[in-house]
Amino acid sequence: MMTETIDILLVEDNPDDVELTMRALKKGKIGNNIYVVRDGEDALDFLFHRGEYSDKKKFPIPGLILLDLNLPKRNGIEILREIKAEPILKRVPVIMLTTSKRDEDIIQSYDLGVNSYIMKPVEFDKFIQTIKNIELYWVLTNTPPLLNGKQQKT
Amino acid sequence: MMTETIDILLVEDNPDDVELTMRALKKGKIGNNIYVVRDGEDALDFLFHRGEYSDKKKFPIPGLILLDLNLPKRNGIEILREIKAEPILKRVPVIMLTTSKRDEDIIQSYDLGVNSYIMKPVEFDKFIQTIKNIELYWVLTNTPPLLNGKQQKT
Repeated sequence: MMTETIDILLVEDNPDDVELTMRALKKGKIGNNIYVVRDGEDALDFLFHRGEYSDKKKFPIPGLILLDLNLPKRNGIEILREIKAEPILKRVPVIMLTTSKRDEDIIQSYDLGVNSYIMKPVEFDKFIQTIKNIELYWVLTNTPPLLNGKQQKT
Repeated sequence: MMTETIDILLVEDNPDDVELTMRALKKGKIGNNIYVVRDGEDALDFLFHRGEYSDKKKFPIPGLILLDLNLPKRNGIEILREIKAEPILKRVPVIMLTTSKRDEDIIQSYDLGVNSYIMKPVEFDKFIQTIKNIELYWVLTNTPPLLNGKQQKT
């Protein structure tokens, strides 16, 4: 297992879900850097270093992306498509984190190369536990992709 | 979280690793069906329903593939490439489970669309724990792909 932290990009427009996710990640005590963007355009600007996110040192390519499906401006499916079409970004594990149980959303996500699809539990305790499981797996068990020629570490 | 079991295909030529992985999965008590193939050609025959694996009911498309990298006949990279080039199979989560720490193997796996890359720990206890973490995440936390028009369940 790795004991390193990674940079996590959370793409989520629901303030309650942002707060809960941040709280769960902090409870895990792994100390990852967490960046939050709240709509689809900001997510793409962040990942492609555009506009206010042009500083690559301040806004690095994340080692993990937690992506909501229903977002303002551009939805999660469009963002996933752009990520997986770009040679370096496509290496970054993308986890769909959504309330959607629609077959079409699940199928389309896997077809576009999502790394994992997680349904957000409605219950508070289960939500926290699910985020902790995601962190345990993707930060401590999985070997992250090599970005910028080296392991993605903070 | 889901409480269903899924079919797992383990592609592994090392008998000790097969035994340890099976033992860890059984300790998890989730009761998944586990299929084992021991070389790259058998893996592809299983997944494409060829030869002795032509019976689709007996050998279903798995809901999860644990794939070793260094295998007899065809290596894990070749198998991954074929899986991710096929419209239905590409939906199945593929976890590289390997001792390889080579940058080239990690990069190539992510470039070809591997869902996750796990380095096998050498220590017995850590190996068992890693397999349990894989099972916890991919069977109980992740929402599996829709195969054959429905959720992949046994």
